[in-house]
Amino acid sequence: MSKFGNISLIAADWGTSNLRVWGIDHQGKVVNTITNGKGMSSLMPSEFEPYLIGLIENWLPKEKKAKCPIIICGMAGAKTGWKEAAYLKAPCPPINEEKIIQLETEDQRISVSIIPGIMQKSPPDVMRGEETQIAGYLSKNPDFDGIICLPGTHTKWVHISAGEIVSFKTFMTGEIFLSLSEHSILKSSVQSDDLDPTSFLEAFEDTYSNPALLSSKLFGLRAADLLENTSAKLLKSKLSGYLIGSELAGAKSYWLGQNIVMIGNNDLCILYQKALKKLGLNATIENTQNVTLYGLQEACRGRYNQ
Amino acid sequence: MSKFGNISLIAADWGTSNLRVWGIDHQGKVVNTITNGKGMSSLMPSEFEPYLIGLIENWLPKEKKAKCPIIICGMAGAKTGWKEAAYLKAPCPPINEEKIIQLETEDQRISVSIIPGIMQKSPPDVMRGEETQIAGYLSKNPDFDGIICLPGTHTKWVHISAGEIVSFKTFMTGEIFLSLSEHSILKSSVQSDDLDPTSFLEAFEDTYSNPALLSSKLFGLRAADLLENTSAKLLKSKLSGYLIGSELAGAKSYWLGQNIVMIGNNDLCILYQKALKKLGLNATIENTQNVTLYGLQEACRGRYNQ
Repeated sequence: MSKFGNISLIAADWGTSNLRVWGIDHQGKVVNTITNGKGMSSLMPSEFEPYLIGLIENWLPKEKKAKCPIIICGMAGAKTGWKEAAYLKAPCPPINEEKIIQLETEDQRISVSIIPGIMQKSPPDVMRGEETQIAGYLSKNPDFDGIICLPGTHTKWVHISAGEIVSFKTFMTGEIFLSLSEHSILKSSVQSDDLDPTSFLEAFEDTYSNPALLSSKLFGLRAADLLENTSAKLLKSKLSGYLIGSELAGAKSYWLGQNIVMIGNNDLCILYQKALKKLGLNATIENTQNVTLYGLQEACRGRYNQ
Repeated sequence: MSKFGNISLIAADWGTSNLRVWGIDHQGKVVNTITNGKGMSSLMPSEFEPYLIGLIENWLPKEKKAKCPIIICGMAGAKTGWKEAAYLKAPCPPINEEKIIQLETEDQRISVSIIPGIMQKSPPDVMRGEETQIAGYLSKNPDFDGIICLPGTHTKWVHISAGEIVSFKTFMTGEIFLSLSEHSILKSSVQSDDLDPTSFLEAFEDTYSNPALLSSKLFGLRAADLLENTSAKLLKSKLSGYLIGSELAGAKSYWLGQNIVMIGNNDLCILYQKALKKLGLNATIENTQNVTLYGLQEACRGRYNQ
């Protein structure tokens, strides 16, 4: 239930495909949450403000002079988003309050700012949104030194030292998984809601030890379906295992001998955790919503005296 | 122009997405060709015969008693095709005349047979159509010992010795290329009709020497587009190079120290040929239509006294 009038900060994670908005009260407690599929890619720049106002109208203060601060991270700050927030350059702290951009809005009841993403020159790489989750984790663990892995459509491995993002590497593993599951000859072979941990780990080890065979192993799933009638559950588990195996071989310079913290979809984090355990590593899984909120609140602590 | 009445054999390569039909005269000369996108995946089993008759009606003999032989290779012989032609098991010759299946047809003017594909038990792998091209090449080069590479949606590396397919390995490289080009975040970055040979070879060497970085290199294309405004032509060339580099690393046990013959789309064969040249190998490109026709004609030489 909404508690109108209590909200003193609105925080949003506005990604490519999804939007999450939180209404936060004076004690920093979340009193309202909206989650939907109205991501950045479905809106024109001019549509962001009216769309957001429509969602949060009832949360806004009744007094005419008050301005409700709204802090946003994610793809809303991309060139094709609401307004571009230019990338910070790694190495750098995940959030630099001075580089948070302020938006002009039609509606005078709100004060909107967007947190910039981070770029790396060489090899070229980018993130938007993950920097805020990292800042949130570091706000509670300021002495952390190690690797933060953020599994997802574009999984990121981020090296953290002395409160800074030193370097990072993105793998397109999740998107390759989706493309092949939905738009390739494997489509009919991997339609399952469940995974089998044993098949996942076997497949993981196969391509971890020989990542060059990835594209051949993937066709092998189709052949196993035709010749051995292997179940969709096992084939989907193997598809996932092959892709993550190849990624962990490529990310070795990131995780070897490191502390690893994981932030992301919980089921996916568990898969990565199982795979890392096979390599002798204990990875800790953080609550993604919590670190995102900590990061957004941290970003405007100085900014709005929150 | 069609020369009705001259045709004594109809040959077809009926793939998943494409159909090619040739009308061949008594001297073995192609006098009619039809190519269209009416592949196996767009037809129900019962639709194959009427569809084919509609195409070739005018080629059929006028005499009531004569039966025109029709020989078909490719996915028309799959479980979901016209009629299943059970796989031969490698090692085996590419075509075994006794295993070619004969179809019952409504139309008594035709006698239709389908050439079976080939399977491999371990690791599981399958081909349908390529065996006929291989048979066609071997009909003109009976002493060939080495590797036939057939680049395509599912590129195949086939080890040939003593006239037999000893073993083979399929890589899903072409399909990954298509999935990513059409259904991923790379879509907007790689729309180009041309390739740049230098970028292709640089990218090829990158993943050939470190195939585990494939999924990271792929995201790097998006980052290079955002940060460096790299042209679509260069990015598409790199996408192709990364994928073929990873494949050639995985196929090393096939090509190392071997004679290599390539059969497939000419532009794609040239890319593979350039990449193989970087590895010190000279690959010969064959005319795909010719070897397909030789294979189809070879298949029915004994069968129909052609």
